[in-house]
Amino acid sequence: MRRFIRKRSDKAGLSPGTAIFVGEKKVDKVTIEIMDYDETQITETEAANIEECFPFKDQPTVTWINIDGLHEVDIIDKLGHHFGLHPLLIEDILNTEQRPKMEETENYIFFVLKMIQINEDDHQITTEQVSVVLGSNFVISLQERKGDVFEPVRERIRKSKWRIRKLGSDYLAYALLDAIVDNYFIVLENIGEQIEDTEQQLTDNPTREVLSRIRNLKKDMIYLRKSIWPLRELISGIQRIESSLIQESTGVYFKDVYDHTIQIIDTVESYRDTISGMLDIYLSSISNKMNEVMKVLTIFASIFIPLTFVAGIYGMNFENMPELKWGWGYFGLLGIMLVIVIVLFIYFRRKKWL
Amino acid sequence: MRRFIRKRSDKAGLSPGTAIFVGEKKVDKVTIEIMDYDETQITETEAANIEECFPFKDQPTVTWINIDGLHEVDIIDKLGHHFGLHPLLIEDILNTEQRPKMEETENYIFFVLKMIQINEDDHQITTEQVSVVLGSNFVISLQERKGDVFEPVRERIRKSKWRIRKLGSDYLAYALLDAIVDNYFIVLENIGEQIEDTEQQLTDNPTREVLSRIRNLKKDMIYLRKSIWPLRELISGIQRIESSLIQESTGVYFKDVYDHTIQIIDTVESYRDTISGMLDIYLSSISNKMNEVMKVLTIFASIFIPLTFVAGIYGMNFENMPELKWGWGYFGLLGIMLVIVIVLFIYFRRKKWL
Amino acid sequence: MRRFIRKRSDKAGLSPGTAIFVGEKKVDKVTIEIMDYDETQITETEAANIEECFPFKDQPTVTWINIDGLHEVDIIDKLGHHFGLHPLLIEDILNTEQRPKMEETENYIFFVLKMIQINEDDHQITTEQVSVVLGSNFVISLQERKGDVFEPVRERIRKSKWRIRKLGSDYLAYALLDAIVDNYFIVLENIGEQIEDTEQQLTDNPTREVLSRIRNLKKDMIYLRKSIWPLRELISGIQRIESSLIQESTGVYFKDVYDHTIQIIDTVESYRDTISGMLDIYLSSISNKMNEVMKVLTIFASIFIPLTFVAGIYGMNFENMPELKWGWGYFGLLGIMLVIVIVLFIYFRRKKWL
Amino acid sequence: MRRFIRKRSDKAGLSPGTAIFVGEKKVDKVTIEIMDYDETQITETEAANIEECFPFKDQPTVTWINIDGLHEVDIIDKLGHHFGLHPLLIEDILNTEQRPKMEETENYIFFVLKMIQINEDDHQITTEQVSVVLGSNFVISLQERKGDVFEPVRERIRKSKWRIRKLGSDYLAYALLDAIVDNYFIVLENIGEQIEDTEQQLTDNPTREVLSRIRNLKKDMIYLRKSIWPLRELISGIQRIESSLIQESTGVYFKDVYDHTIQIIDTVESYRDTISGMLDIYLSSISNKMNEVMKVLTIFASIFIPLTFVAGIYGMNFENMPELKWGWGYFGLLGIMLVIVIVLFIYFRRKKWL
Amino acid sequence: MRRFIRKRSDKAGLSPGTAIFVGEKKVDKVTIEIMDYDETQITETEAANIEECFPFKDQPTVTWINIDGLHEVDIIDKLGHHFGLHPLLIEDILNTEQRPKMEETENYIFFVLKMIQINEDDHQITTEQVSVVLGSNFVISLQERKGDVFEPVRERIRKSKWRIRKLGSDYLAYALLDAIVDNYFIVLENIGEQIEDTEQQLTDNPTREVLSRIRNLKKDMIYLRKSIWPLRELISGIQRIESSLIQESTGVYFKDVYDHTIQIIDTVESYRDTISGMLDIYLSSISNKMNEVMKVLTIFASIFIPLTFVAGIYGMNFENMPELKWGWGYFGLLGIMLVIVIVLFIYFRRKKWL
Repeated sequence: MRRFIRKRSDKAGLSPGTAIFVGEKKVDKVTIEIMDYDETQITETEAANIEECFPFKDQPTVTWINIDGLHEVDIIDKLGHHFGLHPLLIEDILNTEQRPKMEETENYIFFVLKMIQINEDDHQITTEQVSVVLGSNFVISLQERKGDVFEPVRERIRKSKWRIRKLGSDYLAYALLDAIVDNYFIVLENIGEQIEDTEQQLTDNPTREVLSRIRNLKKDMIYLRKSIWPLRELISGIQRIESSLIQESTGVYFKDVYDHTIQIIDTVESYRDTISGMLDIYLSSISNKMNEVMKVLTIFASIFIPLTFVAGIYGMNFENMPELKWGWGYFGLLGIMLVIVIVLFIYFRRKKWL
Repeated sequence: MRRFIRKRSDKAGLSPGTAIFVGEKKVDKVTIEIMDYDETQITETEAANIEECFPFKDQPTVTWINIDGLHEVDIIDKLGHHFGLHPLLIEDILNTEQRPKMEETENYIFFVLKMIQINEDDHQITTEQVSVVLGSNFVISLQERKGDVFEPVRERIRKSKWRIRKLGSDYLAYALLDAIVDNYFIVLENIGEQIEDTEQQLTDNPTREVLSRIRNLKKDMIYLRKSIWPLRELISGIQRIESSLIQESTGVYFKDVYDHTIQIIDTVESYRDTISGMLDIYLSSISNKMNEVMKVLTIFASIFIPLTFVAGIYGMNFENMPELKWGWGYFGLLGIMLVIVIVLFIYFRRKKWL
Repeated sequence: MRRFIRKRSDKAGLSPGTAIFVGEKKVDKVTIEIMDYDETQITETEAANIEECFPFKDQPTVTWINIDGLHEVDIIDKLGHHFGLHPLLIEDILNTEQRPKMEETENYIFFVLKMIQINEDDHQITTEQVSVVLGSNFVISLQERKGDVFEPVRERIRKSKWRIRKLGSDYLAYALLDAIVDNYFIVLENIGEQIEDTEQQLTDNPTREVLSRIRNLKKDMIYLRKSIWPLRELISGIQRIESSLIQESTGVYFKDVYDHTIQIIDTVESYRDTISGMLDIYLSSISNKMNEVMKVLTIFASIFIPLTFVAGIYGMNFENMPELKWGWGYFGLLGIMLVIVIVLFIYFRRKKWL
Repeated sequence: MRRFIRKRSDKAGLSPGTAIFVGEKKVDKVTIEIMDYDETQITETEAANIEECFPFKDQPTVTWINIDGLHEVDIIDKLGHHFGLHPLLIEDILNTEQRPKMEETENYIFFVLKMIQINEDDHQITTEQVSVVLGSNFVISLQERKGDVFEPVRERIRKSKWRIRKLGSDYLAYALLDAIVDNYFIVLENIGEQIEDTEQQLTDNPTREVLSRIRNLKKDMIYLRKSIWPLRELISGIQRIESSLIQESTGVYFKDVYDHTIQIIDTVESYRDTISGMLDIYLSSISNKMNEVMKVLTIFASIFIPLTFVAGIYGMNFENMPELKWGWGYFGLLGIMLVIVIVLFIYFRRKKWL
Repeated sequence: MRRFIRKRSDKAGLSPGTAIFVGEKKVDKVTIEIMDYDETQITETEAANIEECFPFKDQPTVTWINIDGLHEVDIIDKLGHHFGLHPLLIEDILNTEQRPKMEETENYIFFVLKMIQINEDDHQITTEQVSVVLGSNFVISLQERKGDVFEPVRERIRKSKWRIRKLGSDYLAYALLDAIVDNYFIVLENIGEQIEDTEQQLTDNPTREVLSRIRNLKKDMIYLRKSIWPLRELISGIQRIESSLIQESTGVYFKDVYDHTIQIIDTVESYRDTISGMLDIYLSSISNKMNEVMKVLTIFASIFIPLTFVAGIYGMNFENMPELKWGWGYFGLLGIMLVIVIVLFIYFRRKKWL
């Protein structure tokens, strides 16, 4: 649960726009990577301090500043000041519990969203907040820790053959967004496999463990849903922007990533449906199993209790019980008992309990 | 589950517009069929290579190029290049996990949707992605494998008497769309029959197998819903297009196919309602059955346990038990037992358990 | 289920606008009735062939042509041709699985909807498709079989005192629509009574039969809902029409019938709520009954099993069992048993099981 | 159920605008009360016949004509005729199954809604239809029976100190509406108390009676919802009217009553949620109780059935059973039995069944 | 339940705009605090009577008048009169059951909302109604009792370094709104922890107490939802205001608090989903437990009942029972019994009941 809102309360009552880091510190040292490129050249550097980034603001080449680690408020503060970010946006960057959203000003477009990754082994979903600032010739991305889904984008930038080198900062921002959204597909695919597995288990052997898997899947869906619906608004918002920051030719790419988001939402909703159906199936499986148990009990009890009664009759010590003296009494009684068993057997067969 | 998103992840991180086939290879060889017709003549050829199609782009006659098999990326790429398709659209054609959608440009209208077929025997639903490009005097359709629902359309083209020969490429595109949508009715009809069967079984003998049928029907519905809702958007989008590619007189036909889609959606929603009701019925059937079982057990146990106790009493070995010496003691006791049975019988009768 | 879509598949792949009858043939012979009236005079004739209707198209009097039976495609085709109906509309008339809808052209307004009737005895709902074509001075109504809900309208036309004789064809069309919608109230009223009955049964004696009644009611609701929601769109569509075919003074009547439709929808939704609540009640009734059964079993077993054990003790054949030789041993034991019974009785009483 | 639609069917097929009373006759004699006032004077009379009301139509003072009893169609008809009401509105007034709605014409605003009252003792909700006609200087209210929620309004009119005496007929209409809506709060408050009571019972002792209370509450909610949602439309409609009949200064009062309606809707929805939660709680309470019962049975049976078996062993009549001859055999066996009991006791304790 | 609508009924029928206190008296004495500040100076006083506040209305400095305690109607009435509030607003202030809402007039913006606080120990949620009147250079806040969430705001005002001292009354109103909304996060965080705890308990030991916790959480959610949805409308309404009272630069802050509200709504909806899932889990846990109980019973009964029957056979007193005379009969029978036990044991093992 706590993953829904965490540490938020530390901030309650503070002045809005106060730069305070809200979240877990996930990395020791803040790293600042700078990629600066145009169609002909590219330089990649790791900056020792934030001031090294400042000159790139006014260069004509496209610059991508990537910052891993948000806990050193000072760095972000300086960066924000230099690049002219509104204090409320700096607050948003530092608050890792932010709802995905997009803000547009005259000089930049800002969006914040969740980068989601799944561990292949234990199916644990980890999320990280990524803030992106798109300026006229720079893109700043801010992440909570090292390690991201942007490696393929970096590769494409490094090789001159790709389109990305020829296009502006808006295409770079799109490429980052696209990389994040594409990763949702991988997560959903993994969850899809889990659902399949769980369904198989549900059919084969519906144990308690299945119930807890269903519950976990359900929670994952609630969480994904909470991340993906605002993402849709965000991207649809970017599409509607009429800003000189986004060139018309890039619009079609944002539409493409929007379509992907819709497809993710469709899939999440389908999964929700499927998972909620699984709980019903589980419940009826338990009922079915109890039925089984009851039938076994009923059959055993219904056959042997009457027989025991009959045996009890002839275990009585009345002096005058003529049957006891009949020579074939015992064997006759065994025969009668056999008949009773057969009759009951047929009866249960008819009821399809056997 | 995996049928919702499959192989999608292979693409994550690639540059958008990269022509890569995403999906299962469902056919060995790519086939290219060309139908070229106007009101007076018709030629039907199977092209050996994609270049044969290129001249038709600029001929005044209506040309229908149908391609079965998408795995040879090269062919699609060349085709797209010649007919001027945007790289993102080529990517959409090759990605068989595409969500149904429609794109409009100055020179063509593109739409992609799911062709759905049901196997009469095992009720397995198979889907295939169909992309359609509508140009001013040509229609290109791209499918995953041979075998489709377009045969009646081909027949109508071959015979000169039908309207289709007199009308343009927009009517042909409509005819293909209509053929695909009409097939949804067949699938729904088949599912409707399955639902009827399952309901019958539910009344007669609600076994575990029924549960698994209900589950399968539910999944089919989730899947159909996921296909059909975007289809509605797609067709409604086509209706709203103000393009010279679609003549005003064809508009009424697109409205007709739109009405059909709405009817399909209505039916899918009704089926969903019905199926979700069936699960409730199933659950209460199980409970009813358990009630039955419990009643049998309770009746048997409640009748014979007291009797066995009574027999147990007179099986005790106390020296001073006067009843044992009474000559009619045994028979008297049997009478008393009979009375107990009758009383309990009446009691259960009153409770309507017998 | 099949009543949702039936025979639709026979048509799949045919050219749109092909006049083919889709549905059950519900009447042997097609009947054509003509009512022609103005404020001063009225003539009622049964036409021998469809051509007899044609002259009325251009007469100033209001003419109501009512056709029962749709299977003779030829008749409908000729009619459509003479009165200038679009081929797609003729197809809609002949396809009895049509979704209620309204089409407007320059010369006529067309609407198709479901006439619904309920059998008072077996509560079976029967539906029939009615198509209505409203022209400037004529109304054509097409039904699947003889027998309809229009009799009161005919009566009003026959008697000169009613307003209907003074007003135009738009009022006649309204009167037919109103008659159909009013009949939905009768059906709902009947269903309301069934719901009341079933609720009573649910309280008194929740048997399996109740479950099947609930299921049937639920299905009826799904079906009604599917008919009534499009009806609302239809009527709201007519209200919005700005056509010379509908006079302004008639508008208020269409608003009235629209209000009725809304009220029907409200009622259907309330019924759905009520019915879905009944299933929950049923389920808890079953559980309650099982509780009852279990209590009886538990009480019987818990009282007599310990007693039987005690009796079993003194039925053992140990040589050294001093109690057996005590003169009052037997009666003492009976007393102890009585005490056990009383203690258990009090225990169960406390638990409120008795 | 029947309270949803009643007697509606009597009208089916009649000409619209036919003045026919639909509903129960709830009062013997029709009463007509007239209040005529302006800032300085007030007269209150009970009219012997409807004609007495007619002169007030054209007087400058504000006149409130209140009619209790709708079954004398003639009276309503004459009234309608004199005050220029459309025949369809007269039909609406007389049809007590009307859905709350508002109609605006040039000369008057008409609205019809449900006045709701709850009996404090048996929590029975009674409804009555109230129609209100607001003209330029008169308000006509028509009710089904004597006794209403307007008494405080009358009091305010009688005392000259209140604002109502200084304001026009629109304020009077508002005051009536406000009185009716305020009464919904009282009903909801009462239901709120019932819900609290029922929740308490649910915790203390979930009997069958609780189930039937939940069911009744649920039905009340369905009914209230059906009344209150159209009421919201009605009032929101009045707010949007741009008519000279409603002065601008009165608008804020209508907004106020609109806010109240929203609050009522919120509360109804919250109650629905709460009530539907109660059914789930009830179901799990039953399951819990069954669990209890089962545990008692299982403990009794599991302890005494093995013991009875052991006793049964030594009740056998084999000639060669050495234990029977051991002097301490009987007491040893009793000891073993005690050990068995203790072991089982510990076992059930561990399982937390004891 | 009563917390939804309380004491509302006391007012029914009164003239609207009547100043009557509706609610619980939560404080003995009304306190009036005045903070008056501009960038350079600040004065803080506690007013002895309401008249002391009046001069501040026309001073250029920003004045915050905070009133704790609403039961002295007279004070509020005078205040309202002096500051020109509409009688209906005074009624809203005094009615502590008001739905959150916003009203705009020419001279002030009025909003009323719920301040929510949670007790850390018993997780009891307490709410208090806060009304805020924003004028051109003053803000009046009215609360039900002393103690609020505004302390940090006061601190910020006292210290000159904060932005709040430099900005106008609109920013102060925003700061109050923000403080209230921020507190919702704290409440949600606390509830999130409760949900986590309850889930843990649900897994470990699903007792009845868990059910009651789930129920309480559910109720909290219903209540929060009822408060937060109107809050969203309220803030979105403020954003849309085009009033000189709100400066453009403050708009971005209102957007920020709006975003927070959306995030709260998202979280509430996620929690609702999670909680409703917990009930399903609880239900299946109970079923699972019952299954456990049934299995124990069935195993005990199925093993010992047949054995007891066998023992019963040889406890019969027939004269001619040859087995009884066999020397090894007794031990042979014990052996057979052992075999039966082993067979049944294997059988239950196979069924995975052991």
